This record gives sequence, structure tokens and C-alpha cells, in this order.
Amino acid sequence: MSAAHQALRTARRTGRELAITVLDRGTHTSYSACGIPYWMAGDVDGGDDLVARSAEQHRDAGIDLRLGVEVVAADLSGRTVTTADGEAIGFDELVVATGAPAVVPDWALRPDGTAYAGVGVVKTLDDGTAWVDRFAEAGDGAHVVVVGAGYVGVEVAEAALRQGFGVTVLTRTRGMGMLEDEMSDLVNKALVDAGVELVLGAEVTGLDLDGDRVSGVHWDGGSREADLVAVAIGVRPATDFLRGTGLPLTEDGALRPDPHGRVADHVWAAGDCCEVRRRIDDAWVFRPLGTHANKHGRALGDSLAGGSLAFEGMTDTSITRFAACGQYVEIARTGLSRADATAAGLDPVALVTEGSTASGYMPEADPVAIWVMADRASRRLLGVQVVGGRGAGKRIDAAAAVLWHEGTVDDLAWMDLAYAPPFATAWDVLQVAARRVAERL
Amino acid sequence: MSAAHQALRTARRTGRELAITVLDRGTHTSYSACGIPYWMAGDVDGGDDLVARSAEQHRDAGIDLRLGVEVVAADLSGRTVTTADGEAIGFDELVVATGAPAVVPDWALRPDGTAYAGVGVVKTLDDGTAWVDRFAEAGDGAHVVVVGAGYVGVEVAEAALRQGFGVTVLTRTRGMGMLEDEMSDLVNKALVDAGVELVLGAEVTGLDLDGDRVSGVHWDGGSREADLVAVAIGVRPATDFLRGTGLPLTEDGALRPDPHGRVADHVWAAGDCCEVRRRIDDAWVFRPLGTHANKHGRALGDSLAGGSLAFEGMTDTSITRFAACGQYVEIARTGLSRADATAAGLDPVALVTEGSTASGYMPEADPVAIWVMADRASRRLLGVQVVGGRGAGKRIDAAAAVLWHEGTVDDLAWMDLAYAPPFATAWDVLQVAARRVAERL
Repeated sequence: MSAAHQALRTARRTGRELAITVLDRGTHTSYSACGIPYWMAGDVDGGDDLVARSAEQHRDAGIDLRLGVEVVAADLSGRTVTTADGEAIGFDELVVATGAPAVVPDWALRPDGTAYAGVGVVKTLDDGTAWVDRFAEAGDGAHVVVVGAGYVGVEVAEAALRQGFGVTVLTRTRGMGMLEDEMSDLVNKALVDAGVELVLGAEVTGLDLDGDRVSGVHWDGGSREADLVAVAIGVRPATDFLRGTGLPLTEDGALRPDPHGRVADHVWAAGDCCEVRRRIDDAWVFRPLGTHANKHGRALGDSLAGGSLAFEGMTDTSITRFAACGQYVEIARTGLSRADATAAGLDPVALVTEGSTASGYMPEADPVAIWVMADRASRRLLGVQVVGGRGAGKRIDAAAAVLWHEGTVDDLAWMDLAYAPPFATAWDVLQVAARRVAERL
Repeated sequence: MSAAHQALRTARRTGRELAITVLDRGTHTSYSACGIPYWMAGDVDGGDDLVARSAEQHRDAGIDLRLGVEVVAADLSGRTVTTADGEAIGFDELVVATGAPAVVPDWALRPDGTAYAGVGVVKTLDDGTAWVDRFAEAGDGAHVVVVGAGYVGVEVAEAALRQGFGVTVLTRTRGMGMLEDEMSDLVNKALVDAGVELVLGAEVTGLDLDGDRVSGVHWDGGSREADLVAVAIGVRPATDFLRGTGLPLTEDGALRPDPHGRVADHVWAAGDCCEVRRRIDDAWVFRPLGTHANKHGRALGDSLAGGSLAFEGMTDTSITRFAACGQYVEIARTGLSRADATAAGLDPVALVTEGSTASGYMPEADPVAIWVMADRASRRLLGVQVVGGRGAGKRIDAAAAVLWHEGTVDDLAWMDLAYAPPFATAWDVLQVAARRVAERL
């Protein structure tokens, strides 16, 4: 929808006439999937609050929006798409913005392909409604097993704890795979200190059932009773309908549009069905995040209507927090991991530095740990990760800016970041961390 | 002291032998002057908490520290300084780090040159002690007049309000002179909403006295009774002892060291007695801030001992907050003002954008206003100012990073800033603000 609206805006400027039809198999448009865990936690009153623009608002803007319509095939040379109802719809330009539905493992599914009662993913607004209902129906002392410890897994664990449930988090990895081990350990500690039963290296093997309803979870090495199971193991591009069209898809089904959103003549793509280009190592990576999707859609819409806006890649920034049961950590990262850097042939030097979010004598001062990595030869900043108290997380933005500009660890150490006692130490902790790495190059 | 310690560290690496003598006319070393308003507010238990390193700690590190020793003259060719007691002390290298004492206007002073009882500046740890005592002695319903509405003025107003006093703020300007008018208006509104009597355009003409003690303040256009008067109208480099040495001083008495801290053969300078170079327009400006002083000192100390660290200028970043009586605003700026840009021959385009510090549906969402200015022809980002709720202020760092790297307003709009609902909107408000300016260039 971001692409559609930008296209209309740009068309007014360029004088083009556009008739935009939007087909969506879902029941809602333009909602914040990222907000669903906070709705589950009780921070958000209802699903409507998560809707940025209603279907009516889109239609009022002149967009022919058709909900509940699933496209199952595309004929690119014939310039038509076919819906599940068999309708063929023609186009001059096709925009693929089908997103990435949550992956649902076989063990979660009944023979008919639907999930067992008490089991669900956390992706669509309907998923959110289902979870809010499940939480409301669950009795005191109910236990929630969260499968997956990525951003969504941690956010759902927070939601369940804040609703008073017992929580187990199972992860195949060491937890928070987007962080270096020493940083993910800090998040793990916060989870455990909040009362989460955290099981690392656990691959789920199956469910116990009470009739149609989940009653327990088994993994290699253990099991536990469970009233609810939240599955948060990732998402996958919804591009099956493009198989056989000749469009290049990655092994995982993702598209790789150019900076203007083009994937072929008259075919465009944006959002979670796409990979994005990471500037630092020029790698294509799958990062289905709302901020990339919004930017990408805007560049696409503008370009399609004759403008020149471009999505010039990203620096692999992301953020979340874990806040429940007396624990509060902000979690952020930008740039490469150590493994990324090594794979790119760089010579990474990395250190974790501990410091404070504010001057030590201030009540606002919270501990923060900052991981900084730079390339030994070029001194280029390669990556930064942050785990810490209030005010820690968005510090990542200054590092993301240095990465965007291909700056060095010295730039990060010496640039002019804002200092006053409620906000930072005289050398911001980010700069202390950068300086320590700079001294070791 | 930052220079002294870095010099010792570097000397260990370069194999130089350094004997460092530090002369200071004051009674304390290495304290956070920035923390004094928060001590006055009651956030900090005692002045000792503001001391980063005690005199003993400096001496233990091998520095010959002599407190209560004022240097009154320097002979650069003879390489000696002379103290107020008439002692001549020789040097091989002279480091001038004398700082900038608070300006005290004539109307505040008795004939003997000391301030009337109840009147004081807010600069040294001794000033802090005096203010904490004054606040403790002042009765219920006491009224504090703050003269000056810069950072210190606003912070002292917060402190006095939080201690339960009535507060008047008098300023010669429109308030918060480091902000554009439309942004300073937002701070003024917060002050007034917190119950401050704010008088803009007021030049103090004199005091009413009750014996030796202040009882009222007069300005052109008004007067009011006052129990205490805090003077926060600025600071001035303590360089009088250098007059006549041939060292170049600005009209205001500031030094202009090179990036390594050199001002002449065997003479160095750092900190608040210096101007700093602003990268964007290559202007020398007087910005007596702790973060510059710390960086500057480190570069100087390293260079003096054979290293090569350099202070490569700043981008004019600063931050504070006003938090009292139900009001809470974070206040930050970086880069040029509109007047700076025009003076530099640029063609500035600027806009204020209102947005939110977090996704609108989150309890963390607070209003924020962001002023962004760019150059019409080059699209270069020139300045950003922020006034808003919790999490607003340190957003300035991402803008400061773009300025450091001479980036464009498009860089700020499209770079990869961190998004999750508790922290930002999908386009961070900083990027919405940048985009709106980009669209108008």
C-alpha cells in the first residue's frame, strides 16, 4: 500500500494517469504486524489500533482494493494474474508485494493442514485476534511455550509474562541468533531472570494432544506440559505463484529487485517477499522488516509513476526490547556479524564494552553492553550491537549512520554525539566502545 | 586532567619520560560541572558523586597536582609561569586548560567584588555546595529568579521547581538561543506549563537588597521579589594571564588550537578556554561543553607524548531536558542555525515536522517536533533540532553522524534507522522530517 500511495502522489506530479488495483488474500490492510506482541501484552486496546490505513481510506484515495482475493498464478508475457476463483486480471505493470507468511512446522498441524487448538503463529491481524482470545480464555497458571527466540519469540515471551502466564522459550540456537553469542547471553540472562524457562539447542519433535488441543511439547532432550504454543520460527516469501514464470527467485523464494523495485520488464517487487541489499558487504539478505518494506514500497511507487526515488540498501539494523517481571533490556544491532565479516574476507576485530546510558551519578544511569567490530586494515566500522537499559537501544542509529557512510571506527569514536548527564557520559558509551576497538587495530 | 592522563598513557607506549605538574586555582579536580543542576534538584546525593577522579587518584597516577595555585602570568620565551604567590615555575611544554568561569554581571556584586547573599552562579563544585545550602535554608514558598535561559538556566529552573520553589526565568532573548525560534517556543511552553514565570527580552538592571541579601530583581519593564537569584548568562575563557604573551586570543579571550592541541611552539590548549572548529562551515565557535573538552584533552595529551590522535572538530551538537511539575521535554540540536547557514552563503530550506517517539498505538509514544534544514543546491544536511518526549533527544546523534560525514538530507531520510513499536515509527520521525525537507528542495 506504501507503493500504491506513493505512485498516486508521484503521478500527480508527473501527470501520469494510474489505475491501481490491489489484490490481497487477507482481511486487513496496512496494519502493524510488529505491534501484535504489544497487543497481546495489553499495551494496545484492540487490533484496529494497529491499522494505519483502513480499506475504506485506501479506496477513498482512489485505489481499487479487493480483499480476500488470492492470486495463484501469473502470466507475465500475457500480462495477467489468475485468482483462486479462476478470474484472470490483466495488468500493464505488476507489483509483487505479497509479504512473507509465518512458517508453520508439520508438528503444529492437523491432518487437514490447520494448527491444533492452542497453537498459533504471530503474524497477521487475525493471528493477533486469536492470541488475544487464547490469552483471555487461558486460566490462571496457564503455561505458554514459545518456539523460537528471535525478535518475535522474545516479544511474545514478554507478552505472555506480562499477562501472568508461565513461559518456556525453546530455541534451536543459542537464542537471539542475530546477536553475537556474548550479547545474546545477556538477553538470555534477562529472560531467565524474569522467570522464563529457556531451553537452548532444542529442536521440537512433536506435541502432546488432549483431543484436538495441545497439552504438551516434546523436543530432543525434554518435554513439558503446555496450554498454549506460540510458533515464531521465521517467515518465508509468498511467491509460490511465481514459480514457472521465469522470474528469478532465490532458493527460499525471495525476489531481488533493483533500487527502484524492478525485477523484470513490467514487474516490480517490494517488502517481505524480497531480499534487501546490505551495503557494507554488498550481500543480498532476507530481512523481512517493516522499515525496509516501507522504504522499498515508497521507492517502487515513485519509480513506477515516473519518479527516481531509490532504495539504496540497508545496513542490517534492528531493535527490540524485553520488558517483563522486573527485567528491562533494549536490544539492537546494525552491520555485519563476525561470521558475515569473515565470509566477506575482512579481518574483524571486536570487543564488548560495558558502560552506562547516563552519567553514573544520575538516577537514569542503566548498565549497557556494546559490541563493536571493525576491520583491522581499513579501520572501517563493520558492526555494532547493544544490550542495555532505557535509552540504550536507539543509540544504534548513530552507528547505523556511520555504516551508511562507510565510516571508520575512529569516526564513531570521535564524532560529536550529544552529552548531558541524563543522557550519556561525557564520552558516550558508544564512543568509549569504539575507542577501545580503535586502540586495538 | 584528561590531557595529563592520556599523555601518561601514550608516553608508556612511546617510551617518553614525562613529569607532569598540574596547577589549579580551585579546590577540586575532574568534576562534572554539568551535574550540578541535578545535585541541586536532589538527583545526586553529594558533590563527591560528581568527582570523576579525586586529587589523590591523580597523584597516585604520578601527576604532581597542586590545588589552590593560581597562575597569573606566563613567559613563553623564558618558559616559566608565575603564580599569585610569586613563585616562578618552569616548563618544557605548557598546557593551557584553564576553562571558562561563569560571567558575573556588575549588578550581582558587592563593592568588594563578591556576590550578594542569595545570588550565585552555577559552575564550580563550590558553587554547587553554595546552592545546595541556599536551597536547604530557603523556606517554603521561597522564590528563585534564574537569569538566563540557556542550557544551564533551564536546568536550574528544573532544579528549583523540583525542590518546590516558585521560579521566574529572565532572558534577554526569546529563550534557548541555540534553538530556532519555533523550537525554543516549545521549550518556553513547557516552562510556562510547569508554572515558571518566563520573561523574554528582559535585561536585568539591578537588585533590591535587604541588608547584604537580595530581596528582589529589576529589569527593563518589570521587577519581582526574589529570595534567590541564579545567574546563568554564560562563561568566558580564563586566559587573562596570557595577555601580552603574544599568543593569539579571540576578542572573547579564547584560544584556537590545532587538531592536536597546539597553539604555539611548546604551548598547547584544550577545553573551555578554547574555541572549537565546526566542520560544516569550518567556523570557529565558542562551545564550552564537557564532551568537546574531553575529546580535545585526549587528542592533546596523546599528541604531546608523541602520538597522533586528533580532534577533528565538531558538528555543534548539544542536548538537555526540562523535567518538572508534570512537564518533560528533551531538547537537542546539531549543526548550523538558519542564521549560521545564511552567513555561510548557503541557501537553507527548513521545516518543522511533528511526529511521535514510538508507534502511535504504544504507551511509549510521546509527541516530538523535529526541525530539519538542508542546502537547496547541494542537498547537504545542515542542521537538525529536536524537542519532544522521552527518547526524542538522543535521536540527534544519528543526524550528527550524517553531518560528520557531510551527508545529504536524503541520506538522513533513507538510511537504516532502528524500528520497533516501542522505539519509533516505521519511518523514524527523524526520517519523516528529513523526507519532507527533501521533497521541498
